[in-house]
Amino acid sequence: MLDKTIDGLVATQAEVASAVAVAAGRARASLLLRNARIVNVITNEITRGSIAIAGRLIAGVGETYDDADTVESVDLGGAHVCPGLIDGHVHIESSLVRPAAYANAVVPRGVTGVVWDPHEIANVAGIAGIEWCIQSSSGLPLSIWIDAPSCVPSTRLETAGARIGVPEIARLLGHPAVVGVGELMSYAALIDGDDDTLARAYLGQLHRTTVNGHAPGVTGRGVQAYLAAGVGSDHECTELDEAREKLRAGVFLMMREGSATRNLKTLLPLLTAETADRVGFVTDDRLPADLIRDGGVDHLVRIAIASGVSPATAIRAASWNTARYYSLNRRGAIAPGYFADLIVLESIETFSAGAVYHSGVLVARNGTLVRDVVSPVVDAELLTAVRDSVRVSPDAATRFRLPATSATTTVRCIRPIPDQILTTEDRAEATVRDGEIVADPSRDIAKLVCLERHGSNGNVGVGLVTGFGLRRGAIAGTVAHDHHNIMAAGIADADLELAVGRLAEIGGGFVVVDRGHVVAELALPIAGLLSEESIATVDIAMQKLDAAARDLGVTMSAPFMTLSFLGLPVIPELRLTDHGLIDVRAGGVVPVVVE
Amino acid sequence: MLDKTIDGLVATQAEVASAVAVAAGRARASLLLRNARIVNVITNEITRGSIAIAGRLIAGVGETYDDADTVESVDLGGAHVCPGLIDGHVHIESSLVRPAAYANAVVPRGVTGVVWDPHEIANVAGIAGIEWCIQSSSGLPLSIWIDAPSCVPSTRLETAGARIGVPEIARLLGHPAVVGVGELMSYAALIDGDDDTLARAYLGQLHRTTVNGHAPGVTGRGVQAYLAAGVGSDHECTELDEAREKLRAGVFLMMREGSATRNLKTLLPLLTAETADRVGFVTDDRLPADLIRDGGVDHLVRIAIASGVSPATAIRAASWNTARYYSLNRRGAIAPGYFADLIVLESIETFSAGAVYHSGVLVARNGTLVRDVVSPVVDAELLTAVRDSVRVSPDAATRFRLPATSATTTVRCIRPIPDQILTTEDRAEATVRDGEIVADPSRDIAKLVCLERHGSNGNVGVGLVTGFGLRRGAIAGTVAHDHHNIMAAGIADADLELAVGRLAEIGGGFVVVDRGHVVAELALPIAGLLSEESIATVDIAMQKLDAAARDLGVTMSAPFMTLSFLGLPVIPELRLTDHGLIDVRAGGVVPVVVE
Repeated sequence: MLDKTIDGLVATQAEVASAVAVAAGRARASLLLRNARIVNVITNEITRGSIAIAGRLIAGVGETYDDADTVESVDLGGAHVCPGLIDGHVHIESSLVRPAAYANAVVPRGVTGVVWDPHEIANVAGIAGIEWCIQSSSGLPLSIWIDAPSCVPSTRLETAGARIGVPEIARLLGHPAVVGVGELMSYAALIDGDDDTLARAYLGQLHRTTVNGHAPGVTGRGVQAYLAAGVGSDHECTELDEAREKLRAGVFLMMREGSATRNLKTLLPLLTAETADRVGFVTDDRLPADLIRDGGVDHLVRIAIASGVSPATAIRAASWNTARYYSLNRRGAIAPGYFADLIVLESIETFSAGAVYHSGVLVARNGTLVRDVVSPVVDAELLTAVRDSVRVSPDAATRFRLPATSATTTVRCIRPIPDQILTTEDRAEATVRDGEIVADPSRDIAKLVCLERHGSNGNVGVGLVTGFGLRRGAIAGTVAHDHHNIMAAGIADADLELAVGRLAEIGGGFVVVDRGHVVAELALPIAGLLSEESIATVDIAMQKLDAAARDLGVTMSAPFMTLSFLGLPVIPELRLTDHGLIDVRAGGVVPVVVE
Repeated sequence: MLDKTIDGLVATQAEVASAVAVAAGRARASLLLRNARIVNVITNEITRGSIAIAGRLIAGVGETYDDADTVESVDLGGAHVCPGLIDGHVHIESSLVRPAAYANAVVPRGVTGVVWDPHEIANVAGIAGIEWCIQSSSGLPLSIWIDAPSCVPSTRLETAGARIGVPEIARLLGHPAVVGVGELMSYAALIDGDDDTLARAYLGQLHRTTVNGHAPGVTGRGVQAYLAAGVGSDHECTELDEAREKLRAGVFLMMREGSATRNLKTLLPLLTAETADRVGFVTDDRLPADLIRDGGVDHLVRIAIASGVSPATAIRAASWNTARYYSLNRRGAIAPGYFADLIVLESIETFSAGAVYHSGVLVARNGTLVRDVVSPVVDAELLTAVRDSVRVSPDAATRFRLPATSATTTVRCIRPIPDQILTTEDRAEATVRDGEIVADPSRDIAKLVCLERHGSNGNVGVGLVTGFGLRRGAIAGTVAHDHHNIMAAGIADADLELAVGRLAEIGGGFVVVDRGHVVAELALPIAGLLSEESIATVDIAMQKLDAAARDLGVTMSAPFMTLSFLGLPVIPELRLTDHGLIDVRAGGVVPVVVE
């Protein structure tokens, strides 16, 4: 199945021949866009002229085609036309919908391509999950390239649903839709010279492809060592100095504006004439509400232009640069032989898309799709592989106790930092009742549990979280980076237990429980990560979940995303997995009780 | 043989692991260059610090390594260090020496890598000739990558010694030393949609590699059609407007300064901050004298800096940009994990190399190699394939007559344009003697012949050339782009005959004949193209040949190079091959006599 050619991503020789014939004037164009202001992201200038299209490809560009022979002709009245945008690093899973529904959300905004690292589904369903992603991405008005997830599981400090080794990654790299090795999050192991991790990085060289980086806050000798291994990009910079250092050391700098991680404005001063070819825009993880309100990578282009970056430079960071970094053939510019992925802009200053073309076909106009995108049919065995993924042992919930001793005085609490995915370790006086450490809503301390849910070992990790504002009940979900075990925060164990049980019943998703009742929920039957509904439907469900959580006292703006990141043991400082409480910098389990 | 790995070009996983260990501070550097001004071609700036080297690779860069643990340490006293230069497009054959001797000439100047399109040897000796090139390039202090020659023969208007089809090019692209499809000179066929030519261009897409362009003077719809086929570069621009148009259309613009083709100063205005990533420097064809006096691609860097281009931008065009265009892994910058190919500059303003490092080893100092480069041993069957390549039929020389009729009044003469490789068609009154059109030194008209010499069909083309200044005797050579048949210009047929006979005796090369005597010669026993001597020896021989030619009245500054290009039927306007006189724009044979 992995060698199935993804026709949508590659131009055939016959298509190329047709484009050459149209360009040379020996054949009629299928479409001629006349009277355009063409944003040239290669030379960073805007020129006048026409774009002659031959099927899926641009045949020729310039005034020489103003009078070209064509089947259909559109006078753009001097409007700006730019290449369709390409998001250089996205986990579509964060949108909570399937690729078709994701396309529905971003294509009308001018996003015509994304590079998807299906790291989340891979952690649940392995290679079959990635195959599901590739099949679910075919034939859409959005070109979806795949990064081969490199860290499944992410660390030895968690239990994932799958294990992807060097041979499996190598096999994925042979697939025509796969354009790179996904983010190597195991930076500590790589810097330490771990053989298996070095082998994963070396796959980039063996397969003449890119290796994406993930090295938050790593600087000095550490980042030099990390990059020496062959890593080509980084999208985790949160500080200007960190980003400058990485740029100098050779990274393709992906400036990120996600939902929980908003780094673009901090980093924009580095997007200068001298570095304009070394910056790409990425969204990484965006929630449904943000996708609906602000869009995808188009949002970053708008921010950059509003911040004073020249439109051609801003657009380039979300098209040409990313296409070159990934060696995406015939993508990312308005040039002869390139795919006719184009945006006719209503205004270049506000970067608002009027008409959007994908592969030479008008797919959206004035923010609305010309026709709804239907999710492609996927092989039955792949559907089976991604469904019914929540397998918890019946007694798991009975193991949420946190025993105390007479010596127990101080406990570690995870504190999420608002609007970032970093956490810190807080220390607090333990509240002990009947020999157990318990939640203490009066001091904003809730119990946090992580249950292995892949049917593997039934591990349960138990800890404490502060800063959530939870006063009663519980919230829980099967989205938990990167292992996607069940994460649940609550005050009473009974509510935690009910929440976990309900997640198993609906095949994964999110639930809010209040005093013995499920008060809000969203089913995510695909790998416990994705809904089969539209993004609008999912967004409404999320609003209800958020409202129900707020009703329990939660103060976090995106409680379920925050909850999900509490289980991510690769980003400092303190996390919880099914192995227990994790000190990320030390790279090991630490007890809840400070001894 | 083609699957033999070229160890010199690829870093092993063990080498990468060692670089990571040194960068992280877990192992000692093999060499530490301290107190450097480091030219960062990625961010176009100059920073202070140290370069820690682990074997062949740079481990880490920056002030954090000032006190790194190391085996050997060199204090650079604040000197500038830049990446070793990479020449993006060269035919080493034009140097008339083997790769080792070529390395001897350019390495002390800071050239540590070249991309060689061995198109000339391929036209004589086919795939075996290319294998000879690869073997002869291994283990040198110069990294030599290979472009797979795409046009052998160049046209249907000549007889070459070999024929390389789509399957052979595809096989070459599988070799680890081969980094692209060589220049597609058949632009007219490509624009016309010729299937075989389209298939050659499409190999770039199939093999995820570059396709180099060659489209002199092609603009408008023609160049759009040419590029739509998948061509990625061009090095034939002679005019600013032509180059600007090609840049806008997406080419990686190779600015060339060869011996016969000096385009850099004309094109330099296009090397701006907006296009600084889209320009590469190349030498294409350089004669021994120019290599000795001015150097290789270092000469272009000097010209650019002297013309006001910032040093980092100029150096970048001869390193980083070219490395990225060809996806040369770990090359072209001073960054962690990159090959330690470095130049310590005596002065960045004059761009004079002090010490030169290749793969972490000091290979030259103050313009002199640390040790002489020895040509690697080549398999016996490959040597056989490239030697004894001049095979002319005994009666060939008797066919130099140009019969006239009573109607003969006007003849076509080829006129080479000085310092370019273009020619024009001149028309002149015919000088007829004994029923034959003959040379007329009083009007600077010489006879020009082209003899098939590969033992194939014994074709002889006969024409006239003007602008050479020849008054008596003959000059002849086996270097004749691209078929490399024997080209000879002379006044008397007997001298032409003697010159051809002598070339057959010495296995190819250049000869000057004066009134029945060979007065100067240079043997080029490898494919009739390369000497086995040093470049200095060859240069002296060329000086003697040039002096002997001047003694015959020749006024051209480089008569043998000019002679060789007279047989090139892909560059306008009038040429001579073994098929006869060629009208390049019309793409066919035309008679000498104007009817």
